[in-house]
Amino acid sequence: MKLGFIGLGHLGTPIAENLLEKKHSLYVFNRTASKAQMLIDKGATLCKSVKELAAECDIVFTLVSDDAAVNHLTKETEGIAANLKPGGIHVSMSTILPETSNHLYKLHEHHDNHYIACPIMGRPEAAKARKLNILASGSKATLEIIKPFLQDAGAVKIWELGDDISASNVAKLCGNFLIISAIEAMAESINLASKSGLDAGKWIEMITQTLFPSPIYVNYSKMILEETFAPGGFSVKLGSKDVNLVLQQAKNLDAKMPFGNQLKHQIDECIEKGYGDNDWTAIALALK
Amino acid sequence: MKLGFIGLGHLGTPIAENLLEKKHSLYVFNRTASKAQMLIDKGATLCKSVKELAAECDIVFTLVSDDAAVNHLTKETEGIAANLKPGGIHVSMSTILPETSNHLYKLHEHHDNHYIACPIMGRPEAAKARKLNILASGSKATLEIIKPFLQDAGAVKIWELGDDISASNVAKLCGNFLIISAIEAMAESINLASKSGLDAGKWIEMITQTLFPSPIYVNYSKMILEETFAPGGFSVKLGSKDVNLVLQQAKNLDAKMPFGNQLKHQIDECIEKGYGDNDWTAIALALK
Repeated sequence: MKLGFIGLGHLGTPIAENLLEKKHSLYVFNRTASKAQMLIDKGATLCKSVKELAAECDIVFTLVSDDAAVNHLTKETEGIAANLKPGGIHVSMSTILPETSNHLYKLHEHHDNHYIACPIMGRPEAAKARKLNILASGSKATLEIIKPFLQDAGAVKIWELGDDISASNVAKLCGNFLIISAIEAMAESINLASKSGLDAGKWIEMITQTLFPSPIYVNYSKMILEETFAPGGFSVKLGSKDVNLVLQQAKNLDAKMPFGNQLKHQIDECIEKGYGDNDWTAIALALK
Repeated sequence: MKLGFIGLGHLGTPIAENLLEKKHSLYVFNRTASKAQMLIDKGATLCKSVKELAAECDIVFTLVSDDAAVNHLTKETEGIAANLKPGGIHVSMSTILPETSNHLYKLHEHHDNHYIACPIMGRPEAAKARKLNILASGSKATLEIIKPFLQDAGAVKIWELGDDISASNVAKLCGNFLIISAIEAMAESINLASKSGLDAGKWIEMITQTLFPSPIYVNYSKMILEETFAPGGFSVKLGSKDVNLVLQQAKNLDAKMPFGNQLKHQIDECIEKGYGDNDWTAIALALK
């Protein structure tokens, strides 16, 4: 099987590297070709275009920044759907709107090839450590074919969320909403604790050993307390994109999201203050 | 040592019962005397007034509904501070404003007896199972005296938060804010997931085994999914009280709490709809 990978960002690069380490034939394409160099040095083949890559590969993974980018890659005459061979599989790992997945699924069906939604839960460190949770939805038959490759890509577990193609996209958006909500709640309470004269570090130690002994609370509270907000993981701008997708989905379905609306407000303020490229824990700075 | 206990509510009753089970001499008082009957049957002595109880006991525990109640019990001429013997200890377990603890600490000092703040983290089930986390702040010497009794009262762990008398009150309020924030975030995302056609139960299973493997997420998501919201644990009205205390403390210190303000809005709507006595997960109903 020839594998293709498009989207060599912070998360895509270590995932592609994982596939290479498992000795797969890997074809890569990236808008900024220089980002592919490290992978080429490790044995990947650079394609000149999406079309070339799609025509060459049996399975194409995409992990790009937003709905527009995955639409562009997939829908154009030079794109994945029109150029992937019959029976080929497009594994869409981006965090996108459910309706985008629905649409691209039909487009691939029209071209006699397959689309499956497999958004990734995990930061770049988790990809490097092969501890990614991969959400999956769509055709069971297609999923069975790609499962071994998802394992090799760094999955610690593949969560099968059913036949409905967009179920995993919904699951991913709702998961990210829970994370950013927890970050905002921690930021507000750490700020209040500190202003009240309580040792916030001691308080967080207690909280994360009692009520909230989970990686999200343990890791992000540490980042909020240290106030580093260093870029490199998941940025405020990416968080902004996801919250906007959540609110778009909520609007489409007439679902109330008061915390969602408030998060958008905090994130927008944070970006206005110039912290858009910092780690998304920097929304704590909108409280200052 | 003679122990006194005032405030035999959902949480106070099992704590007092724990003390009795450890063979302590226990004196009780409750506004509604009938609530004491079960404890009297198990060997507790009923006092006719706060004054009588305070005069009789070496250590008095209070666990009442709000700042006004603990102020009333403590400050009156017939109250705990004026009637507790010199060197006696008032262990204040209620969730109250830090400034209330500061004030009562000074009042007890004036009467040559002691006040220590020990709010309880845990629901009635945790009290029965002796799995309470007890937060403690104030004089180290006083804390050393009462520690064995806190253990007997059902502590799985005592968290020492320092000499500042109100540190544990701040810690408790911030902890409850984190819990109610998590409940609201879960309610919004479960609602969105369901409306999107995703199996919310399956999604929660994934979320609580990956990002949020903590009791708060596991237990409360179950209650939100089941939509029972049965009274008996911690009510919306109690949650309302705590959110108001958090916002009061934030206002005193000029700390921004956008989620806090939003929570107040959701809770008020929930109470208006008639769900004030239901479990506080019923804030999910403000989204309907």
